Amino acid sequence: MVGGGFGGLACARALQAWPVSVHLIDSHNYHLFTPLLYQVATGLLNPSDIAYPFRTCFRGSPNVRFQQARVATVDESAKHLVTEAGETISYDYLVLATGSTNNYFGDPALAAFTLGMKTLEEALRLRNHVLNCLEQAAQTTDEAERRRQLTFVVIGGGPTGVEYAGALGELLQLVLGTEFPELDVHWARVVVVEGQDRLLHTMKPRLGRYAAKTLQRRGIEVRAGVMVSRVTPDTVELSDGNAIPTATVVWSAGVKPDLPRNSAGPMKGRITVDGDFRIVGWPGSFAIGDGAAFTGSDGEILPMLSAPAMQGGRHVARVILDDIGIGPPGEPRAPFRYIDKGTMATIGRNAAVGQIKRFQMTGFIGWVAWLAVHLYYLAGFRNRLVVLSTWGFNYLHRDRPIRIIARADE
Amino acid sequence: MVGGGFGGLACARALQAWPVSVHLIDSHNYHLFTPLLYQVATGLLNPSDIAYPFRTCFRGSPNVRFQQARVATVDESAKHLVTEAGETISYDYLVLATGSTNNYFGDPALAAFTLGMKTLEEALRLRNHVLNCLEQAAQTTDEAERRRQLTFVVIGGGPTGVEYAGALGELLQLVLGTEFPELDVHWARVVVVEGQDRLLHTMKPRLGRYAAKTLQRRGIEVRAGVMVSRVTPDTVELSDGNAIPTATVVWSAGVKPDLPRNSAGPMKGRITVDGDFRIVGWPGSFAIGDGAAFTGSDGEILPMLSAPAMQGGRHVARVILDDIGIGPPGEPRAPFRYIDKGTMATIGRNAAVGQIKRFQMTGFIGWVAWLAVHLYYLAGFRNRLVVLSTWGFNYLHRDRPIRIIARADE
Repeated sequence: MVGGGFGGLACARALQAWPVSVHLIDSHNYHLFTPLLYQVATGLLNPSDIAYPFRTCFRGSPNVRFQQARVATVDESAKHLVTEAGETISYDYLVLATGSTNNYFGDPALAAFTLGMKTLEEALRLRNHVLNCLEQAAQTTDEAERRRQLTFVVIGGGPTGVEYAGALGELLQLVLGTEFPELDVHWARVVVVEGQDRLLHTMKPRLGRYAAKTLQRRGIEVRAGVMVSRVTPDTVELSDGNAIPTATVVWSAGVKPDLPRNSAGPMKGRITVDGDFRIVGWPGSFAIGDGAAFTGSDGEILPMLSAPAMQGGRHVARVILDDIGIGPPGEPRAPFRYIDKGTMATIGRNAAVGQIKRFQMTGFIGWVAWLAVHLYYLAGFRNRLVVLSTWGFNYLHRDRPIRIIARADE
Repeated sequence: MVGGGFGGLACARALQAWPVSVHLIDSHNYHLFTPLLYQVATGLLNPSDIAYPFRTCFRGSPNVRFQQARVATVDESAKHLVTEAGETISYDYLVLATGSTNNYFGDPALAAFTLGMKTLEEALRLRNHVLNCLEQAAQTTDEAERRRQLTFVVIGGGPTGVEYAGALGELLQLVLGTEFPELDVHWARVVVVEGQDRLLHTMKPRLGRYAAKTLQRRGIEVRAGVMVSRVTPDTVELSDGNAIPTATVVWSAGVKPDLPRNSAGPMKGRITVDGDFRIVGWPGSFAIGDGAAFTGSDGEILPMLSAPAMQGGRHVARVILDDIGIGPPGEPRAPFRYIDKGTMATIGRNAAVGQIKRFQMTGFIGWVAWLAVHLYYLAGFRNRLVVLSTWGFNYLHRDRPIRIIARADE
């Protein structure tokens, strides 16, 4: 099992009760609840609230072994993989659940001058950076520089961009108003840039319009139908000719599969898999989640979301158990069918959008539903308790308590 | 006000209600409750539990202005200081409360190959490093290397070293026993090295003996009366000829004042101050806390502890108010007299030592007293609540929940 995100963790959990030996490899020592990363980035939650150590997950399962390592290459014919530290690890069955990483479309300036939101490290860096911009803005006497420090550009108007922009807007409202007498809350500017003609283009048009309207009502600028043409250390240039001076550019406009760098084989883009998530051309190996291209019964490729990853993980566990002949008795395995659990995005306090098939939600109802769903899926009892009490406390006090600039570079 | 540690914060708080303009400068944006750093380093508390943003402290005090900056030099004759960013800041009264930093006694190997415990960044780095050692130990097949990764040497048997060693021992007991099936809990080794002939040599001999006995009963080695002669990337060499192969050397054997680097003037070592904490030779400037050498009525220089820093800070506030002629009415200012609030150190679960003047405490009573005192002094309502509930939860569950390896380098 390579990767302990939503897919890998679901697969390992589905296997842990069976007489198989699971070797879980991940480059981090924790499972990360990525949907709440934006709350870490905006000082609402602590890193440990959304990160759950793998070893704690599998404390009671001696057949699941965790190893912190990064996989360099896979040799399917030899049935082994090689870690970046040079260790060779053999397998009977391989499950690649390596997820995705930021896609800068080959532009080194994007990689160098934007801040990501895919990992805990990136979220912490973003939190430190934004808080530092406020301190810099409070100190400067140069008005243009102050405006630049207080301008935050979010590239990408998907769920991540919308959620982060909304939460950042709330953070700035709260903090600038009360704790920065040097600064006026109206000097701060949050701009969401989206290449498509509306926000949340994977959702229904009505929801995208609602999100844009809600963000705008809360003072956030939305620029849809505009591409980013160039990013420099102090400016974002847009395809409509405008340039926005800024010290903070957040990248949430694209991800790509994060696969072992195999010279040959099927690992280009997302890996093509069959109806049981077997990698085409590599029998006995599976790929699930963001790294896999699974074509559903409707002819569409499964979206890069947590739900298809988890469902794929559980299906693969069943396929492996059947293959060994120790699977659950009873009815034969049903073919995989993706159950769309819907998608959601919060826009901020009391406002979220969600859709489950044809059913759509907005506003306060959507927000409460969002809360319930995220608490339900958050791994680990302690984390759920802490997150719930943090949310409750901060809802009442309108606070973002974790506003410390703390690095831990080694 | 330069520095927002215990001394600077106490001074600023004592001035905030008066018609004076306080300019608080610190290189971090938060006040750090350093006595609990070792709990962050051992995964019990989150960084934000012991770090309180200055701007939040002074939210309701428009006369206190915070600036995140590092002071490079002070020009007393011109009554201004210069930040490392090059900004010149004028003052009427200067209070230097810049605290202390690790003292490596000029040994670059100590600075390079040991991990400190003076800042939040250092504590996080130490936490990440120790957890990473466990992961490395779990992976290696080389027994000597595994033993090296599982050996932790703490240099310095003062309160910091004793508290960290005790907490690290508990962390290893808890984690190795339950979550690392690859490792045996008896393979781990924690060694405390102290140059003096006993631990806690600033406290009564009985308490040092109790601390050593308690640590040893919990499996921690205590080497008193032994100096460190050399530290290399993989070994600690001791003055008794022994060498300990280790991947982790924690430095808690010395601190020194962390003063602005002035070429001339009174800033060598701790700054000599008079009975009102005025810097000798610099009238109108004060020094408090670890950076000041204040000689008490008993002829002793005040220890580098939080209590004398806080008491000095409050006294200096009164001196300044009197000087301006707006101080509290009534009786004239009493000369400064240090009130010894005692010192304490936890050794771990249910065990601590403490002394207040001639009164001494050990064991469970000491531990409860330690809890009460630290909760009382911890700044900020939210933090106190979070820390209390975390302690309660982990006391019952014997857990160290925050075991994630997360960096945030920028």
